[in-house]
Amino acid sequence: MGPLEKLINPSSIAIVGASNNPLKMATMHLLSIMKDGYTGKIFPVHPKEDVVFGLKAYKSPLDLPQAPDCAIFVIPSVGIPATLDAFGTIGTKRAIIISAGFKEVGEEGRKLEEEVKAIAAKHGIRFLGPNCMGLINSEIALNTTVMAYTAKPGALGLASQSGTYITQSIMYLQHHGVRFSKALSVGNEADISIIDVLEYLGNDEQTKAISLYIEGIRDVPRFLEVASNITPKKPVIAQYVGGSSAGARAGSSHTGAMAGPDYLYEGLFKQAGIIRVYSVEELYMHGHVLATQPRLKGNRVGIITNSGGPGTSMANTCEKEGFTVPPFSQMLQEKIKPLIPPHAPAGNPVDITFNLDLDVLTIKIPELAIQSGEVDALCIHGAFRKGFVECIFPHIQQVLNLQKPEDILGFLPTDLDTPGTIAYKYGIPIVMSSFFDYQDDFTQSMLEKGIPVFDSPEKAAKALAVLLRYKEVTERLPYEKVSLPKASPEAAAIIEKAIKNKQKALDEHAAKTLLAIYG
Amino acid sequence: MGPLEKLINPSSIAIVGASNNPLKMATMHLLSIMKDGYTGKIFPVHPKEDVVFGLKAYKSPLDLPQAPDCAIFVIPSVGIPATLDAFGTIGTKRAIIISAGFKEVGEEGRKLEEEVKAIAAKHGIRFLGPNCMGLINSEIALNTTVMAYTAKPGALGLASQSGTYITQSIMYLQHHGVRFSKALSVGNEADISIIDVLEYLGNDEQTKAISLYIEGIRDVPRFLEVASNITPKKPVIAQYVGGSSAGARAGSSHTGAMAGPDYLYEGLFKQAGIIRVYSVEELYMHGHVLATQPRLKGNRVGIITNSGGPGTSMANTCEKEGFTVPPFSQMLQEKIKPLIPPHAPAGNPVDITFNLDLDVLTIKIPELAIQSGEVDALCIHGAFRKGFVECIFPHIQQVLNLQKPEDILGFLPTDLDTPGTIAYKYGIPIVMSSFFDYQDDFTQSMLEKGIPVFDSPEKAAKALAVLLRYKEVTERLPYEKVSLPKASPEAAAIIEKAIKNKQKALDEHAAKTLLAIYG
Repeated sequence: MGPLEKLINPSSIAIVGASNNPLKMATMHLLSIMKDGYTGKIFPVHPKEDVVFGLKAYKSPLDLPQAPDCAIFVIPSVGIPATLDAFGTIGTKRAIIISAGFKEVGEEGRKLEEEVKAIAAKHGIRFLGPNCMGLINSEIALNTTVMAYTAKPGALGLASQSGTYITQSIMYLQHHGVRFSKALSVGNEADISIIDVLEYLGNDEQTKAISLYIEGIRDVPRFLEVASNITPKKPVIAQYVGGSSAGARAGSSHTGAMAGPDYLYEGLFKQAGIIRVYSVEELYMHGHVLATQPRLKGNRVGIITNSGGPGTSMANTCEKEGFTVPPFSQMLQEKIKPLIPPHAPAGNPVDITFNLDLDVLTIKIPELAIQSGEVDALCIHGAFRKGFVECIFPHIQQVLNLQKPEDILGFLPTDLDTPGTIAYKYGIPIVMSSFFDYQDDFTQSMLEKGIPVFDSPEKAAKALAVLLRYKEVTERLPYEKVSLPKASPEAAAIIEKAIKNKQKALDEHAAKTLLAIYG
Repeated sequence: MGPLEKLINPSSIAIVGASNNPLKMATMHLLSIMKDGYTGKIFPVHPKEDVVFGLKAYKSPLDLPQAPDCAIFVIPSVGIPATLDAFGTIGTKRAIIISAGFKEVGEEGRKLEEEVKAIAAKHGIRFLGPNCMGLINSEIALNTTVMAYTAKPGALGLASQSGTYITQSIMYLQHHGVRFSKALSVGNEADISIIDVLEYLGNDEQTKAISLYIEGIRDVPRFLEVASNITPKKPVIAQYVGGSSAGARAGSSHTGAMAGPDYLYEGLFKQAGIIRVYSVEELYMHGHVLATQPRLKGNRVGIITNSGGPGTSMANTCEKEGFTVPPFSQMLQEKIKPLIPPHAPAGNPVDITFNLDLDVLTIKIPELAIQSGEVDALCIHGAFRKGFVECIFPHIQQVLNLQKPEDILGFLPTDLDTPGTIAYKYGIPIVMSSFFDYQDDFTQSMLEKGIPVFDSPEKAAKALAVLLRYKEVTERLPYEKVSLPKASPEAAAIIEKAIKNKQKALDEHAAKTLLAIYG
């Protein structure tokens, strides 16, 4: 059992700093744990409270009736060593240190962080942070962040060197149908590192794909080894932002991360079989596609659209990304033609032209295309219903004497369930695009069923291509572990020199020399 | 006065096909014209109606009390020649043919299109379409599309070879604060071409930037000349989707466009000073930045964030796009430090850390940075209010005995007006990112004031860079008109051969030869 097992699946949690003031950060963390579905024991620890929102509170860890599996700290950083020591004394072995004010703020903080590490080591405590947002484990409805997380369990694992990407973004993720299996904010990585989290997610059955937000990797050889063992079985994508001088400087003051030149990370990701992405949107949405869609068996995409422009853009983007968009056979076209207007293109892209009978666009033609054996994936544009009605409603309201947009939806009987099941029924990945977002009932129903819906056609096509990138990863030669000269004195000298000079990143010459040493 | 003047600014409009059935397309076009604010005269023309929604209707153009400035056709294509002829007889000189069923559907349609062109030529009628969605002219609140367009007048001009991009996307545009000056769907371009529209928008005072969606340009020399005259004064961006074989095939059946290899268009855009974009999202949002933000005077970006990760990503993306993110001077940092927590980075990026006092993030630090003279543009992440409150509301509702999220907004006095004015006050472009979309009141207020808000930090940085691309365009040597060997017999032979072979696009050899002929 790895060090993260009990941290991510605790039976009992103490939260240090939580009070009855709901606008304090510690209390907001507590409220998330209390209200988002966690069923384990919760112990607020606060010097002045007896009862916190109905829970018995404790003045000190030493007063607790049991050693909690995990202690969460949201108190000023200087108070942490003593409190952590007390938890160690009672036998707690896991902690999450949310508080900031450590390595990321300079020398004083660095010393404090060392102190915390020493105390943890003394007691055999493994901990996440400091300077992090904690974690979400959707499997047991545990959310230690400050935001409400109410989505049902998902399949995307996230490890992030920025806490924001599992807090500020939670509503965004909900609006895009992205659901986590587990998401962890690793902060300063004083103990548990992003590599440990990656390893955990690699072995976690609930997690079908992994997204990494990276400002700097500390132990490159181990990262390479861990990632290389995961990527043949489970896709991993990563965003790296430390490659420019401004990015490196910002990351350094953010989590004290030691960044390196962009091309080093580019090579590292390639070798490890990690697919690189360039924005947090891709980190989420491409991860979402990998986590929810069946694996791609070939590179032929079928495109079905209700409008020419988006179909053309999708086709163009698909080909640029390495897909083919093969003209459909005469036999398949003959089957499609009765479903679309005369003269409408049936040859891939299929352009059904504007049509509010969504069954043709999202069920009938998709099934014909899949059953023909002529496509390995589908890209569908233009399925919308309520959003469109809301758009024309101001014009037809008086005319039809309607009260609200819903009045007209009765005239549009639509199967909202079947389209979301086709991908899984046939094992063929499907992505969609629509200019109508989560406010549209059709979009909403796809998001609920795990079919990714993008707000523009090119994005859908580009995200579909992440499945092709992953297919390439799985088809390449198996990773051979190179025996790295771990104790290379030249390499050690370069790194020592950099540290001595207080460099935050290696200069290009040193980095190249280092690379050369490691072959 | 160009051919588009009366088409875009008609004093009177006839709409052929509009009836009292609000679910018919022609009627939906009529309702948009009637209800979105147009104040000119409107004449429904329909064989069976006497009155349409209170407007006197006419059985034939010959019955009309006057020749309307513009006639709009939404009837089956075969009926158009005779009706157009009748309008010509009464003296109408402009038309919009919405109906499809022409060149894009094959030989029969091509003949019909020729017939329409001949009739138009006979009467001196200039027309948009066929197979288009018409136009939006926000200056006179004229909307001939099927969707409600209620946004206030904007500054982005759009010319599109796909009608969808001014119809299906209207709610999307509203949600992102993008507002058109004029937007035209050109369809098959049987008469008025995308080049004519580009020329019009280039001269239009309301239009500050132009976005073009292109599946294929027919008259390349004229496009080059028209665009080259506009781009030194007004930015033009373009998405071209005909460069792949699937894209070319799809475009051909969509509007009958003749596409060419991607690199030909790449070169054409470069020569013309047109900035290329690769998705409709960029077409809208980069156009929006160009249309709303002051011109960039240098390449130094200041980044202000409430969270480290997005600040780091923004910094990294800005540098990749050619900006510098210079460390702020000690003097500026000393001014910023009292506004942010101790140890928080003040050196660019400025990380104010999580803070619901938005004045620091969106007014005080921006003004300090601008007044210092150390930045040419600002990228701000993390301004949100109502969206965040909605996210924590489920947790604090009971605790604070609140009825609705708005109850807590009273505790967060925020200046929602000033932040949206700073860019214009100082002539410094500002873009923002937030994971809270139009549902957030701060985001909404920025969108209303024309400050672009993106849903991820990298997108904001990348969109800001379009101002840098345009700065490069304006700083390059003036365009010198090359005297093209227009009558080159070799070139004519290549093109004739392609047409004879019924090729929809030139093959690579022919294209390269053609390029070589034109130097």
